Amino acid sequence: MTNLPTTMRAVQILDYEGKLGSFCVAELPVPKPGPGEVLVKVFASPVNPSDLMFVQGHYGFKKPLPAIPGFEGSGTVVAAGAGVMPRILNGKRVACAAADAKVVGGVWAEYLLTSAQMCIPLNKAVDMEQGAMMLVNPLTAWALIDEARRGGHRAAVQTAAASALGKMVVRLAKRFSLPLINIVRRPEQVEMLREVGAEHVLDSSAAGFDEQLQSLCRKLGATIGFDAVAGAMSAQVMKAQPAGARLIVYGALSLEPCQSDPESLIFERKRLEGFWLSGWLRDKSLMQKFRVSSKVQGLLASDLKSEVQGRFALNDAAAALQQYAKSMTAGKVLIKPAQ
Amino acid sequence: MTNLPTTMRAVQILDYEGKLGSFCVAELPVPKPGPGEVLVKVFASPVNPSDLMFVQGHYGFKKPLPAIPGFEGSGTVVAAGAGVMPRILNGKRVACAAADAKVVGGVWAEYLLTSAQMCIPLNKAVDMEQGAMMLVNPLTAWALIDEARRGGHRAAVQTAAASALGKMVVRLAKRFSLPLINIVRRPEQVEMLREVGAEHVLDSSAAGFDEQLQSLCRKLGATIGFDAVAGAMSAQVMKAQPAGARLIVYGALSLEPCQSDPESLIFERKRLEGFWLSGWLRDKSLMQKFRVSSKVQGLLASDLKSEVQGRFALNDAAAALQQYAKSMTAGKVLIKPAQ
Repeated sequence: MTNLPTTMRAVQILDYEGKLGSFCVAELPVPKPGPGEVLVKVFASPVNPSDLMFVQGHYGFKKPLPAIPGFEGSGTVVAAGAGVMPRILNGKRVACAAADAKVVGGVWAEYLLTSAQMCIPLNKAVDMEQGAMMLVNPLTAWALIDEARRGGHRAAVQTAAASALGKMVVRLAKRFSLPLINIVRRPEQVEMLREVGAEHVLDSSAAGFDEQLQSLCRKLGATIGFDAVAGAMSAQVMKAQPAGARLIVYGALSLEPCQSDPESLIFERKRLEGFWLSGWLRDKSLMQKFRVSSKVQGLLASDLKSEVQGRFALNDAAAALQQYAKSMTAGKVLIKPAQ
Repeated sequence: MTNLPTTMRAVQILDYEGKLGSFCVAELPVPKPGPGEVLVKVFASPVNPSDLMFVQGHYGFKKPLPAIPGFEGSGTVVAAGAGVMPRILNGKRVACAAADAKVVGGVWAEYLLTSAQMCIPLNKAVDMEQGAMMLVNPLTAWALIDEARRGGHRAAVQTAAASALGKMVVRLAKRFSLPLINIVRRPEQVEMLREVGAEHVLDSSAAGFDEQLQSLCRKLGATIGFDAVAGAMSAQVMKAQPAGARLIVYGALSLEPCQSDPESLIFERKRLEGFWLSGWLRDKSLMQKFRVSSKVQGLLASDLKSEVQGRFALNDAAAALQQYAKSMTAGKVLIKPAQ
């Protein structure tokens, strides 16, 4: 801890209006780790859809203002509080998260103070930029496909299939030979998904979409679904799925409440639930976490690789957010404090 | 089978427009029971919300037109097809159902041909009018409370609490000492529910409803909910419930799709599902069915008693429907073919 500076730079939002003008870069004291905590010198942190929702006050929780955004990233543990886990992690390269109301800080900063439980050590072979994007997308994709496999579902259906996460789900489904129906919103995304290896791709803006979706869902037996759109799309997918199906909501790109037809729920015994990575991780034992993360890290250069469309310094966080919001399917935007 | 007439009178709907003018009384051949089937000489049949939805084409399935409405009733088995169950039921007074797409006929007729599986023999002490209303309301109320008790839920919340079924849920919850939060839509229903014995009653049209609902749901731990309204009400109740809660939809009085906030699903692990009596019954073994029905029959003169606001002949089915639709909380309307 001897070589640490006393202050650091961090992006701050002053309100939850989501306006880019309310972003600033503040000079703050470098926090000191307490029991069970570690201090991470941040290498990189992506802008995720959950960050966009957080800065607009639409995320599941708010942090006290002014708040540092950034829910995940990578870096090196440079100081450790009391406890076994912090000691093990000290000096290690890690993927780290701040996606919990209990973590006061955020990753869009030179240093992040977080719980050791929110860090996963990175294998030597893992690229630090890919490691920065490991927790939110690759791990969620893994968890969703895992849910489908454990539940013995014959096939799955997903919305927002052209997103970074959607494409990972496509590749994992292929790896595990799980038939997957992919829903995209624009015609040009159909070809894009085919290039990733998707077999069944439906454009929800095309004529006859509803009928095609229903006939495919029932033919393949898509009794599990993953939805990141919400709104009317949830009802559309549930209606198309066979009787007894589950639809798992993990995002709400439409910013609208999920809809579901009472008929689907009552007469066809379908159900609507949610998935939240932080909750999923909290339920896992340390051993389970390590096992999953080692599998996921092994695929970070292939099936679970994230594309990067741009790299920004802390000072340009607002511009980074803007670029990502403008073109979310062109790849991730990284914020790199050392840049 | 010797004394049966060759024809019978039955109410028919000619379309699913739900207009009262499209009702007629037809003279039809009396059907003959095949294997596993029985013929019931109908004594009485109520108008239920599900009948209103059925004649308007909003129910979970449609029967081929012209169709005979009426999903439940009571009567005497006067003819039996091949099989053990039909033979056991022959000559017995039964509660009978036609709430399944596989049953071609309906109960608003002099005779109903249905599966023996859709009939439950009535104990001698049971009044035939009460028996006619046993399956839909009392059995659903029993099933919902049973779900809450089996799931170990500390408390429950229900919408449409002033309905006939809602009041039965109130009485059963009291019998089993399950704290229950009741939501009604009008101020005058608050007093009505208190008279039935309800402790917690909230009027959704009152100021501060949302806050009161949330604080009560969390204080009592209402991790299970029963919703017959759907629409925005589903989201309102789910939001108020504590983390990890289930909301079970069994009706859709608002005729709108259920809404649910992605936040509730994702961050609070709540889920939305449905309940359908026919499906619930189909899952039960014969022994389970008898056990439940004997408990329910034992309460038909007390906790599970239905009030009757009017009795109509087959010819007046349209008027019966109209009276019930006008005042659904004033008691059931019965159609009695022999009247």
